[in-house]
Amino acid sequence: MSLHNETVSLPTLNQGTDATFIEGLGGMFENAPWIAGRAASQRPFATVADLFRVMHEAVERASEEEILALLRGHPELAFSGAMTRDSVDEQNAAGLDRLSGAQRETFGRLNKAYREKFGFPFILCVRRHGRDSILREFERRLGLSADQERETALAEVLRIGALRLDQRIAGPDRLPVAGRLSTHVLDTAIGRPAAGIEIEVFEVASDGQHFVGHATTNADGRTDRPLIGDRPVPIANYELRFHVGAYFQAKGYPLADPAFLDVVPIRFGVAEAEAHYHVPLLVSPWSYSTYRGS
Amino acid sequence: MSLHNETVSLPTLNQGTDATFIEGLGGMFENAPWIAGRAASQRPFATVADLFRVMHEAVERASEEEILALLRGHPELAFSGAMTRDSVDEQNAAGLDRLSGAQRETFGRLNKAYREKFGFPFILCVRRHGRDSILREFERRLGLSADQERETALAEVLRIGALRLDQRIAGPDRLPVAGRLSTHVLDTAIGRPAAGIEIEVFEVASDGQHFVGHATTNADGRTDRPLIGDRPVPIANYELRFHVGAYFQAKGYPLADPAFLDVVPIRFGVAEAEAHYHVPLLVSPWSYSTYRGS
Amino acid sequence: MSLHNETVSLPTLNQGTDATFIEGLGGMFENAPWIAGRAASQRPFATVADLFRVMHEAVERASEEEILALLRGHPELAFSGAMTRDSVDEQNAAGLDRLSGAQRETFGRLNKAYREKFGFPFILCVRRHGRDSILREFERRLGLSADQERETALAEVLRIGALRLDQRIAGPDRLPVAGRLSTHVLDTAIGRPAAGIEIEVFEVASDGQHFVGHATTNADGRTDRPLIGDRPVPIANYELRFHVGAYFQAKGYPLADPAFLDVVPIRFGVAEAEAHYHVPLLVSPWSYSTYRGS
Amino acid sequence: MSLHNETVSLPTLNQGTDATFIEGLGGMFENAPWIAGRAASQRPFATVADLFRVMHEAVERASEEEILALLRGHPELAFSGAMTRDSVDEQNAAGLDRLSGAQRETFGRLNKAYREKFGFPFILCVRRHGRDSILREFERRLGLSADQERETALAEVLRIGALRLDQRIAGPDRLPVAGRLSTHVLDTAIGRPAAGIEIEVFEVASDGQHFVGHATTNADGRTDRPLIGDRPVPIANYELRFHVGAYFQAKGYPLADPAFLDVVPIRFGVAEAEAHYHVPLLVSPWSYSTYRGS
Repeated sequence: MSLHNETVSLPTLNQGTDATFIEGLGGMFENAPWIAGRAASQRPFATVADLFRVMHEAVERASEEEILALLRGHPELAFSGAMTRDSVDEQNAAGLDRLSGAQRETFGRLNKAYREKFGFPFILCVRRHGRDSILREFERRLGLSADQERETALAEVLRIGALRLDQRIAGPDRLPVAGRLSTHVLDTAIGRPAAGIEIEVFEVASDGQHFVGHATTNADGRTDRPLIGDRPVPIANYELRFHVGAYFQAKGYPLADPAFLDVVPIRFGVAEAEAHYHVPLLVSPWSYSTYRGS
Repeated sequence: MSLHNETVSLPTLNQGTDATFIEGLGGMFENAPWIAGRAASQRPFATVADLFRVMHEAVERASEEEILALLRGHPELAFSGAMTRDSVDEQNAAGLDRLSGAQRETFGRLNKAYREKFGFPFILCVRRHGRDSILREFERRLGLSADQERETALAEVLRIGALRLDQRIAGPDRLPVAGRLSTHVLDTAIGRPAAGIEIEVFEVASDGQHFVGHATTNADGRTDRPLIGDRPVPIANYELRFHVGAYFQAKGYPLADPAFLDVVPIRFGVAEAEAHYHVPLLVSPWSYSTYRGS
Repeated sequence: MSLHNETVSLPTLNQGTDATFIEGLGGMFENAPWIAGRAASQRPFATVADLFRVMHEAVERASEEEILALLRGHPELAFSGAMTRDSVDEQNAAGLDRLSGAQRETFGRLNKAYREKFGFPFILCVRRHGRDSILREFERRLGLSADQERETALAEVLRIGALRLDQRIAGPDRLPVAGRLSTHVLDTAIGRPAAGIEIEVFEVASDGQHFVGHATTNADGRTDRPLIGDRPVPIANYELRFHVGAYFQAKGYPLADPAFLDVVPIRFGVAEAEAHYHVPLLVSPWSYSTYRGS
Repeated sequence: MSLHNETVSLPTLNQGTDATFIEGLGGMFENAPWIAGRAASQRPFATVADLFRVMHEAVERASEEEILALLRGHPELAFSGAMTRDSVDEQNAAGLDRLSGAQRETFGRLNKAYREKFGFPFILCVRRHGRDSILREFERRLGLSADQERETALAEVLRIGALRLDQRIAGPDRLPVAGRLSTHVLDTAIGRPAAGIEIEVFEVASDGQHFVGHATTNADGRTDRPLIGDRPVPIANYELRFHVGAYFQAKGYPLADPAFLDVVPIRFGVAEAEAHYHVPLLVSPWSYSTYRGS
């Protein structure tokens, strides 16, 4: 995600010169402005999807040398050297700038093994993965054949490009790159939405739980915005913590001391980064249930 | 609990000499063998409840000096000096031998303030309390009046005595000193008990989660023995962790990767140490519910 | 509801003559075209709510004689004589044209007692009530004082008027006269919406269950339209019957014979005709739950 | 079930003469006292299971003529002529004495077709079946081959015998002929068993719902005895009706009018007559869930 870039509108891109087009979109594919260059000549684009399809085709039709250069133009994961600003942002969002010594060592070992086997750096659309999933993918892909892995790496290049494009361009459509994590809380003791419940979101990884965000339920028992939205939901395990004890106390329910339910943790896994995970909580002071809803 | 003592049968106690009776039961009340002494003359006892009632009455009828000596005969909590073996066992079971420096300092400060205000050490039946609850009780009781606290302290002395007696004597009855924490797991996808599910029990305290025990569900979806049983359930917050992912995988259910449900944590508070808390899990690969049952 | 009338747009009403306005809206209040007459002079109306407020005020400011005439202009319930077409439609929709002999006798008796006590016929916005609720209201209101009942009857006149207006006029807004009954079905065995489930809706009355309608769940596990919508949800008890057995069989789930769950009946009461009742079903072949949701 | 017979103890049977033994157990197999006769010589029996196994073997070793006579010794279903008292009791318990004209005609037609095809009457352990299941079995078995059906009929003869034996003899063990239908009700608004809830049990058949029995929950939220117990649970669909509205009202919960939940119907199928069906209700005034438990 190009947090440091401003968005640009599709009409503006359609009407500008080739040079402005390439300046605007050259960074969508890491160190490969030629992809934007080939798309420039096919303007105008009615939709962002049209534009992405043309860039996708440019990659598919590229020569073997161009492909290899494209793959090699990506930085290694958890690498501290020179990177494009987009890559820095993406890797930092995935926590790769906050690795422990042991973790950095693991990445170093895997990066080396990978580059030796395949001849280019390990490329992963890290915004689609949680901490554990990145390493699991790394290890899984080290076991692939050269052909399989070349295809897998290119698919990741395109995923990175689509995400960057979706963030960069304001157009009439959005690329299908975002998932959603949402919830709602129903107070089953009174059959009404539970308002004012604090919810914390954590990523549950093998090295601990990492705070992702928090929200408060509104009068509908929902949160004003999704817990995670407008971006992929990283493939990971999560824990939602619903602070129901404070809510029940504020409502004046008779409670034990300590209350039977205070913080309700709901732990679940996300396997599809672009899917909608609705994880509600139906709760009374003495019971609750949850499910993957829709 | 006198883990190091063997149990003795009520008939044996009834038939022995006063001296054996006092030797057997003199430790039920800390440093106060005279309570057993007064009970000895009222033998035989048909039930343990009868015996306890007589000891209870001996305490109630004791002189002011005897009561003060009884209270002063107890050790301070988290105190490292000379204690009876029963007290050492009880305090260690409550984790008071594994306090951090800061915690030990807190206990030191509270012990001092308490003794200055009331003139005897703080007495608590620690087997009825979790880590946080011990400190909460300490602070709450520091705020009581001298009369209220004398009564409260005596009630705790009797609770300690009842628990020791229940563990010490094999009789036709049990004193109502034990609570119970139990569970069962139902697989709602197939409408059958879920067998072979690993369950871990943790105490959730302000300084972290402390492992209490674990169990595996049997063919009835229950555990062969209660998660906590045959003793008070310490007043505390708990987390049960049900390892359902391994179960569903073993059953061959189609699962996502990572699975939607892997470890299901159920967190709840216990407010009545002698009550039965049944906390079941009704679970499919995509939903679950729990409640305080009976 | 004027099923036989076509809707008319607010701008048309605003721009026409007083005569057309009164012709269009004279029937909104039973046999009282003067109410529309007084509103005509205050045109134009920006919203239907504005128009209704002006009519409401006309009723409030009417003389005692006009009010009495307004009340007396309404037909009796379950009366077979001359009625406006609107009243016929409304009473028939409430099933008052299909009463048994005993029920007709009850209405006759109540109508007579009511008219004798209050001097005007019993007026009820029958579209807000189920079979049992109409009679319960009748008996309850017979017990009111003359002042209380005059106020209650006028409030019903206004409710009838609001409902007719809402159906008659196409404007920028809707009057808040409609409730909603909706559902969704989630298959908790697979964590997905259950599509293709047949749902029947019955009113559960003291004289039996009356078919209200049916629907089938779509790919979202919802119904394309609410089970009851765009009108009040009559105050009554309901039973939804979800034909889950056919769904599970079609999905190839292993089922017992007979299946543990085939038709799941959910029975509940509606007390607020203008509220939203969302009554979902979370179901596996061996378990289900429901709740009043939002 | 020989309701009119008194039970007899196994020791009494072991110690009596052959004649008393045969007199006591001759009726266990319809019009076939020879089976008891062959078992008499193998006394004493330590358990009822031992005795039944010996009778079972006597049937297995019988000659072709004896088998045919055994099968032909059974009455037709819904037949009004001469029957043993055991058969009358069993058929009446299954409601076969209360058939409508059309149903009697159906049985007549099936009985005739069956006897013509197989040469003996249709034998079914009717205590294991509900109304619809009897007819379904009848039609299913009419389609079997002569060999298959002879085996099926003999298995039913043995089931009838086992049930009669289990009711007749007081021994150290019970034959595994009984199923169980049980429930419990938990009030999830307060996390406690719901006491005093009226429960009605109905069999849901194609010709309507038939009252089976009723019970009231005790302080544990359970019923003092199973809803159906000490006998097979007839293969059928059932509806439990929990009168929760009266309970919530008595507890003083704030309720709507009409209440959201008043009578909660739970409808389910029983496929295994000897199994345990535990069908609980977890309910608050605004939500409930149920499942097949254990």
